[in-house]
Amino acid sequence: MGDMDIDDNLIALEKMLQVTFRDHSLLRRAITHHSCCSTTAVHDSYDTLEFLGDAIISAHVVEYIYRTFPDATEGEMTALKSEVVSRRVFAKIGQQLGLFPHIRVDVANLRTFNERSRDSLCADVLEALVGAIHIDQGAEAAREFVARIILPVVLPLSQQTLDANPKGRLQKIVLQRSGCLPRYKVLEQGGSNNDRVFLVGVFEQDVLLGIGQASSIKEAGRLAAREALELMHEKDGS
Amino acid sequence: MGDMDIDDNLIALEKMLQVTFRDHSLLRRAITHHSCCSTTAVHDSYDTLEFLGDAIISAHVVEYIYRTFPDATEGEMTALKSEVVSRRVFAKIGQQLGLFPHIRVDVANLRTFNERSRDSLCADVLEALVGAIHIDQGAEAAREFVARIILPVVLPLSQQTLDANPKGRLQKIVLQRSGCLPRYKVLEQGGSNNDRVFLVGVFEQDVLLGIGQASSIKEAGRLAAREALELMHEKDGS
Repeated sequence: MGDMDIDDNLIALEKMLQVTFRDHSLLRRAITHHSCCSTTAVHDSYDTLEFLGDAIISAHVVEYIYRTFPDATEGEMTALKSEVVSRRVFAKIGQQLGLFPHIRVDVANLRTFNERSRDSLCADVLEALVGAIHIDQGAEAAREFVARIILPVVLPLSQQTLDANPKGRLQKIVLQRSGCLPRYKVLEQGGSNNDRVFLVGVFEQDVLLGIGQASSIKEAGRLAAREALELMHEKDGS
Repeated sequence: MGDMDIDDNLIALEKMLQVTFRDHSLLRRAITHHSCCSTTAVHDSYDTLEFLGDAIISAHVVEYIYRTFPDATEGEMTALKSEVVSRRVFAKIGQQLGLFPHIRVDVANLRTFNERSRDSLCADVLEALVGAIHIDQGAEAAREFVARIILPVVLPLSQQTLDANPKGRLQKIVLQRSGCLPRYKVLEQGGSNNDRVFLVGVFEQDVLLGIGQASSIKEAGRLAAREALELMHEKDGS
């Protein structure tokens, strides 16, 4: 194609990604660790593409969460986003995609190289590839790639994360059975400035469902919701 | 327009933003603090739109930095992004835009209300508006709004931030005058595990330009670069 930089590795990678680059030097850069080019790293390694890709992925993940879970609170959305946009998850996606054999890294130049380095490189390169696709193919192509490769992990992860939120779970249950939202009230507050204690109760209409005590109202409310859920489960005999 | 929710405040706000919403309830939500609707906050307050807007703004700011400063390192880009995507900067933009009088907040329901609360509300609502524009008008309209309202602050802030990076500045100077990059060497390391000390020197070819000492190699390198810059300025008589 008149492109000197293209080699078999890049062709195989493009096939795997289902993306054909206009500028193959950008694709090469997205898979190049700075250990291969320490003096010219700014232009030849993936560091800044990774930075770009991370921000693009975050925006798409957040939009997907916003649209998919319209009833989630901002706190729940934040927790789920942190779960998805994480080194651990990106490493897993990158490994499963088969990125590792394509990554250009000078292992001799690294202080240590082990399974964690491998994970870390895969996570980096996944992000860098999104950055490179965005620059080479435009915003829509990057969106499509993220939707195909990354967004499928959101739903499975959401089950863990949203379930880990007792206030959200309690709200669903109470709303379903009585059509009203649980209300949280500070029942007592004490302690001095640096050592506050709040006692919070959660109510369904006028019935106290549970109480919690903590150094912040928010955490006390979470504990109250958790107690309410535990008491309900006991009644269910589960 | 058959839209029950539209009122004079929303019309004035649309004029100010230069955006006309299809769904005015979304615009109303973007300017509504949860103090106005504590029991229905998830659907009626700006909290989740703010979460969405923040991610969208970040992606556009990062892309702009990436395209505008192709020679910056990932560290410099990260520093500049943190400078731009901050409560302080968004508060200032929101205040200057004149958002505050449009915000729906129940001041009596807040624990405290002062100048900082005003700043905080303006920052929140700026982000929420970007989220609302994205949902109501699409990605391109949100991009255009961010480019018009937020990106103009990047260049002025970049001068401070990029100048605050001595290694980047030194690199430019050394590269220009000798065509080679400054090299950093650990000259000495001492101390125990929790109390390490590194002495790093920065060299132009074989000439020592400056030294720095700190508890991390990175920080010691930064100090070495800063010393090198100071010594150069002294020579220049500036």
